[in-house]
Amino acid sequence: MPAPFSTLDDFRKLLAEAPKADQGVLDAAAERNGQLTKPPGALGRLEEMAIWYAGWRGTARPEIAAPQVIVFAGNHGVTAQGVSAFPAEVTEQMVLNFQHGGAAINQLSRAAGAKLSVHALELDRPTADFTQSPAMSEAEVIAALATGWDAVAENTDLLVVGEMGIGNTTAAAAIAAALFGGAAEDWVGRGTGVDDAGLATKARVVAEGLAVNPAREGLEVLRCLGGRELAAMAGAIARARSLSIPVILDGFICCAAAAALEAAEGGALDHALAGHVSAETGHVRLLEKLGKAPMLSLGLRLGEASGGALAINILKSAIACHSGMATFAEAGVADG
Amino acid sequence: MPAPFSTLDDFRKLLAEAPKADQGVLDAAAERNGQLTKPPGALGRLEEMAIWYAGWRGTARPEIAAPQVIVFAGNHGVTAQGVSAFPAEVTEQMVLNFQHGGAAINQLSRAAGAKLSVHALELDRPTADFTQSPAMSEAEVIAALATGWDAVAENTDLLVVGEMGIGNTTAAAAIAAALFGGAAEDWVGRGTGVDDAGLATKARVVAEGLAVNPAREGLEVLRCLGGRELAAMAGAIARARSLSIPVILDGFICCAAAAALEAAEGGALDHALAGHVSAETGHVRLLEKLGKAPMLSLGLRLGEASGGALAINILKSAIACHSGMATFAEAGVADG
Repeated sequence: MPAPFSTLDDFRKLLAEAPKADQGVLDAAAERNGQLTKPPGALGRLEEMAIWYAGWRGTARPEIAAPQVIVFAGNHGVTAQGVSAFPAEVTEQMVLNFQHGGAAINQLSRAAGAKLSVHALELDRPTADFTQSPAMSEAEVIAALATGWDAVAENTDLLVVGEMGIGNTTAAAAIAAALFGGAAEDWVGRGTGVDDAGLATKARVVAEGLAVNPAREGLEVLRCLGGRELAAMAGAIARARSLSIPVILDGFICCAAAAALEAAEGGALDHALAGHVSAETGHVRLLEKLGKAPMLSLGLRLGEASGGALAINILKSAIACHSGMATFAEAGVADG
Repeated sequence: MPAPFSTLDDFRKLLAEAPKADQGVLDAAAERNGQLTKPPGALGRLEEMAIWYAGWRGTARPEIAAPQVIVFAGNHGVTAQGVSAFPAEVTEQMVLNFQHGGAAINQLSRAAGAKLSVHALELDRPTADFTQSPAMSEAEVIAALATGWDAVAENTDLLVVGEMGIGNTTAAAAIAAALFGGAAEDWVGRGTGVDDAGLATKARVVAEGLAVNPAREGLEVLRCLGGRELAAMAGAIARARSLSIPVILDGFICCAAAAALEAAEGGALDHALAGHVSAETGHVRLLEKLGKAPMLSLGLRLGEASGGALAINILKSAIACHSGMATFAEAGVADG
């Protein structure tokens, strides 16, 4: 079945009609949590995560059996402006590395018991340089959203999306600046490792992109300043919502793509947790704007879904406690 | 073979003679890390953790195949002072819950692929109330240290220790105050959930304990203000060091026990990472004193080794990346 949208307006309508968490299940999960053999609140954020997850899955005692990690790859015309420490060829080389099992995300997905899939989006046809024109036409962004939408397995019970794309921290910074304001300098970072001159170039390029592309609506921002892999992440996150599959967000680029959804439709990320806060400059600020507290803070700045995948085992552990622990009554333990 | 110490002086000598990380392996692991298919430093603290772990295991490409979690339980005479929201009987009830698989640590150990063992230390014979006399005699603390020493499986490649003991946040606060100074109020917290009056009682009890027990040497502090489960954790951490087995520390009580080792012999915790920072008041400060940055900060305050066990999968993921990723040369990826 093809993705059920052929225009951005169709996609906006899907976002507006998306399912919400089940309040009855949230209440039942919270009640169960209060009966487990531990002092109230002693598992901290694990308790909140487990209740949240239960509410999306529609059962007060859920499990996580089939997590999926998807990495989308795309190339960016804006690399012509010299915004990356690595050449654009590395995008494709890293896709091959993913396919051969040699990248960080291969190891992290396996360690999380997650199925990994990789989608390269027209790597030989980079998006347009957004300092000259919009990065994508509506047809192009719809195709990328659809690739993401179709990539989510329906039997998945937890989704992590990530990306590979030389130049895409610049695209993400431009999206964040367009959606949330502030100076370009507030949002650009060192990406794969540019020097001070490279950082200044990125800020200039972002400022030019904002001037050339005046639209500030969420999905228009994604189209004009994003890239195919960013749109695909957004499409996958939206598809997960339509299936009530919880999502763990990865780093700065993933969150910039996700932020476009939230800007288009408030609450569009209610089914998503922030897996980590990365070392990329703008990520802390972006998470604050999204109102998401990260599960992990370990200085990662790799992309590839790495931080989101690393967080899967934390959520799995939260669910294992919530669904597996004995109640005070079952265990014969005095309740305070 | 019985534990190779029968006095605290014997034990101090073992600490002084403990093995160190292998510098040649640390160098080799750092060199390997620099060749992996990612920008330099892009895996953040995972890279540091993997190199550190390699240095202790004596191989530049290690694996974690047999982690062990041990929970020690003990009872405390100081509960007579009304320092806990739960009755002392809960210690034994929770031990039964551990044995029946119903506690948080059972679920967390399983989620981490770790073997869990539980040791109850003379629950029917609480330590002395330290506001009246030292908590333990030298023979008693040696017996508890030996229980911990003997509990570590020699084929373990990663150790997490934790505790259950109604009243033991008060003991831990007293140890921390004795070792690091500051007011009793700086170190006491709400434990399983005492109210403001209970918190004031804990501070008074800690201050009394410090006055009644003037010794400030690490192992004497552990003997006079600690408890059997704290001494057992210290014994297990020391045994892990003697076998070059890395340790992930749990929360406030575990770290207080560990701090007694570090006070007795500087560097005694070089083989240990801080698994998390708990919501118990004194833990942030204690980790600062130990110079350990926590891997996780999720508001846990349960004990039972829960935070340490939760961190196992993070370290496993770090090792999976370090030992499983392709190098730039192997993958044919351009190196910046």
